[in-house]
Amino acid sequence: MTQETSASPSSAVLIIGNEILSGRTQDTNTATIAEFLGALGIELCEVRVVRDVEAEIVAAVNALRASYTYVFTTGGIGPTHDDITADAIAKAFGVGIDYHPEAIALLEPRYKPGEFNVMRRRMARIPHGAALIRNPVSAAPGFQLENVFVMAGVPMVMRAMLDDLAPRLAKGALVVTSTVSAQVAEGSIAEPLARIQAEYAGVAIGSYPFYRADGSGVELVVRGREPSAVEAATCAIERILGERGVTTRRP
Amino acid sequence: MTQETSASPSSAVLIIGNEILSGRTQDTNTATIAEFLGALGIELCEVRVVRDVEAEIVAAVNALRASYTYVFTTGGIGPTHDDITADAIAKAFGVGIDYHPEAIALLEPRYKPGEFNVMRRRMARIPHGAALIRNPVSAAPGFQLENVFVMAGVPMVMRAMLDDLAPRLAKGALVVTSTVSAQVAEGSIAEPLARIQAEYAGVAIGSYPFYRADGSGVELVVRGREPSAVEAATCAIERILGERGVTTRRP
Repeated sequence: MTQETSASPSSAVLIIGNEILSGRTQDTNTATIAEFLGALGIELCEVRVVRDVEAEIVAAVNALRASYTYVFTTGGIGPTHDDITADAIAKAFGVGIDYHPEAIALLEPRYKPGEFNVMRRRMARIPHGAALIRNPVSAAPGFQLENVFVMAGVPMVMRAMLDDLAPRLAKGALVVTSTVSAQVAEGSIAEPLARIQAEYAGVAIGSYPFYRADGSGVELVVRGREPSAVEAATCAIERILGERGVTTRRP
Repeated sequence: MTQETSASPSSAVLIIGNEILSGRTQDTNTATIAEFLGALGIELCEVRVVRDVEAEIVAAVNALRASYTYVFTTGGIGPTHDDITADAIAKAFGVGIDYHPEAIALLEPRYKPGEFNVMRRRMARIPHGAALIRNPVSAAPGFQLENVFVMAGVPMVMRAMLDDLAPRLAKGALVVTSTVSAQVAEGSIAEPLARIQAEYAGVAIGSYPFYRADGSGVELVVRGREPSAVEAATCAIERILGERGVTTRRP
């Protein structure tokens, strides 16, 4: 697995937003991006959430872009004073930033005469060397600088930007997932489960207990890039559970 | 604000879990911890999500514990092979790990004779020097090592552990929040808003556009540790919006 994993593109998400850290807003962008990347065979390896503080954004962007094939940021590209992402990205790359003619051309027609004010023009400030990411929802573009993709924080806008940037990404081998659900305590099957994990080193087996009104149990999730290995490991799990009289199902 | 902020305890959350990164599970622990810390006046400054990979957990724990007053981890302390957090924390601190008599005493009575197997005993392996965090839901304890608090990933269990560890935390000055909601495009008020932010440097003003079926608009969130400054900045926002004929409300 490690060979296949290292050959596939890796990625990180950087969420820029005081509103997530204060608990005001429940982040859903991570899950959206994770599913999007999964469908492309790009592994999401790390997520960071940082404050609207330039030095913290710069440090996180530089750490992540050095470690992963792609970095996706969300938040901080609107017109208000707390939107500082574009400047932070320029600083992280050590490049200048200026009004981008194409971004101006996208934004200006959206406003009545006199309404395209100095703060709205901030949304057209793009670091030197960056390519735009289109925003069909509200026009203000994101941008790509090398392996860093800078997107809006509003989920609807971010999803539209993912559609625009998708063709620029290298695809990896798809990860196949198989889930076995059983109403059994995970501790009672942990030992044979560990043996199956050792036997099928090419897959990753996750064990996730659940507690529900209609009964507690565990979901065993097998993930890997080789479908036959995933299926074999899944069958092995079903077999050892069946031997113990545990009913399983694939949800 | 910066003086008050630096005097108050800071914190980070480290979520250990492939299931979050794959998009299988929507993380809700971050928001729970954020609210918990907010009520104690402890600022949540950063969140990281990493894979179930020892080296990545070690690197993240060591980076975060050096930077913040407190670090809270969730996930990876169950009985199965993919639960590697306790070992990773021991490695991060360079200490040994062994069966903790108190943890054994908490766990053993939960099981019938013969059911407290070798994998379940793994949940009693605690790094040297750590203090336990009680788990009234399912007994298996978390632990505290210096400024790092290691908790379960299951939300119900994690919440119970927060209750147990709360008395160990130093409190900071509470952050007061005030919100103004208005059906206006944020770009049209961004300029006076920036002036208010400049005038009231002791508060942080966030601008969060929303798009709903019954109308779009913006929520302006004022946060700070000095209630009178928060109220004054909020009133200033209401005044400049009122002058522009925009109706506001405090939701």
